[in-house]
Amino acid sequence: MMSNAPIGLFDSGIGGLTVVQEVFRQLPQEEILYFGDTLRCPYGDRDKNEIIRFSTEIGDFLVNRGVKLLIIACNTATATSLSILQQRYDIPVIGVISPGSRAAISMSKTMRVGVIGTRVTVASDAYAKEIHRLNPKLYVVSQACPEFVPIVENDRIETEASKRIVARDLASISTENIDTLILGCTHYPLLKHVIQDVMGSRVQLINSAEETAREASTILSIKNLLNERRSEKRHKFFVSANVDTFRMIGERWLGRKLDVELVDLFNSNQPRTFRVI
Amino acid sequence: MMSNAPIGLFDSGIGGLTVVQEVFRQLPQEEILYFGDTLRCPYGDRDKNEIIRFSTEIGDFLVNRGVKLLIIACNTATATSLSILQQRYDIPVIGVISPGSRAAISMSKTMRVGVIGTRVTVASDAYAKEIHRLNPKLYVVSQACPEFVPIVENDRIETEASKRIVARDLASISTENIDTLILGCTHYPLLKHVIQDVMGSRVQLINSAEETAREASTILSIKNLLNERRSEKRHKFFVSANVDTFRMIGERWLGRKLDVELVDLFNSNQPRTFRVI
Repeated sequence: MMSNAPIGLFDSGIGGLTVVQEVFRQLPQEEILYFGDTLRCPYGDRDKNEIIRFSTEIGDFLVNRGVKLLIIACNTATATSLSILQQRYDIPVIGVISPGSRAAISMSKTMRVGVIGTRVTVASDAYAKEIHRLNPKLYVVSQACPEFVPIVENDRIETEASKRIVARDLASISTENIDTLILGCTHYPLLKHVIQDVMGSRVQLINSAEETAREASTILSIKNLLNERRSEKRHKFFVSANVDTFRMIGERWLGRKLDVELVDLFNSNQPRTFRVI
Repeated sequence: MMSNAPIGLFDSGIGGLTVVQEVFRQLPQEEILYFGDTLRCPYGDRDKNEIIRFSTEIGDFLVNRGVKLLIIACNTATATSLSILQQRYDIPVIGVISPGSRAAISMSKTMRVGVIGTRVTVASDAYAKEIHRLNPKLYVVSQACPEFVPIVENDRIETEASKRIVARDLASISTENIDTLILGCTHYPLLKHVIQDVMGSRVQLINSAEETAREASTILSIKNLLNERRSEKRHKFFVSANVDTFRMIGERWLGRKLDVELVDLFNSNQPRTFRVI
């Protein structure tokens, strides 16, 4: 694998752009390929096997394009598909759950941690399992907030109605006396100011996007895959629907022009050259 | 390599115990072997080749005892010997400089970062090199603080004289308008309250011990080497001199009884079974 190959990332839609933003910030020498499954978004309430099938299709698409590292920039897809994609490809595959879990263990002083996410992520108990695998002593409480993703995907972050939904959905977890709250969905960092207001300044929010970009840096580093060439980057974004909306929102969030292309996964005749273990 | 093998750590003296403390906190299921080179401490003003020789002797000692991961818990030894030890052993070897650098890149908002360390660490420019390898856009300023290690090793942290030395040595870097300061020596977290007072609350301090334990967790995780057995741990500490002083200070810092043994590296007839590449 060449160190100047791109990093692949995917998400059910635009939420994973928070991870892209952090890769651009922390690893500005890396080139990325992003896939947003805007046709089938959201994943958060879907059947587990369906999410695994979607993740595999998208993983194959990106791996076929020669990515050196695959980031599942979606908590729901990480919770369901990480170990399957790790076995499927011979490049490193990381999700967003381990980085957020490790950050919570490192940052919590009181050992009382909260997690918010979609229904599938919370039902999978993936954060509590990962945290307890590393450190069984932490108290972990979680809360599904299924209405947060539509707020972000529909660009209604700053409305009063949205603020009321956030306050209502966090009411229960705010009484749990936690000192650390994992934003267990890549969409949620876009709501972080609203969430911080509800939780209060004593609760530190963990942005899994930020932590994931940092772990990508660690893994590329130990595998000698960091791109140290300062050549021009050609970042590329693929979506399964709604090119124009994706481009408009993405360009505003990332503050740069995006090269966005529509892909029909079912009819893409891609060569199957990756190694299936 | 077995996942229930211990993690090896070494330092010129007691400073590396800050990394041990973080491994205990973040990875309580792991067992550790620690070597403190108290006979030859401090390393900070020594010749580079001498430090490489010491690091290799200690690395061999720990690798011969079957550690699954070697942590150079000393900035000076990391700056001089990391790549040499990475080539020498077939287990993963990490230092404290990359984790601190990655944390600074992730945490700094203004992209203006300071580094304090020993003379050798600062002269090596290792932090600026590592930060710029990942992200050339950061401004990095560094300052040698050679008197901080003796303050910690001699247990004079809370004295007025020590506070004056810290204020004097940080006078220059405090005018640099940085928002993030890397404590580029494993001894310095023990002085963090004094350092924070001098730098002011707007400057976030990066404890490389905390960040290194977290990267150890990432690396053990992707290599499937996390210890998930909850059996009793037998942590072991080796020193090259001053067993009683090491035990006294170490037990106070770590809040637990330590099993400390004196080792004569020159006369230890250990089998040389590791693979030299």
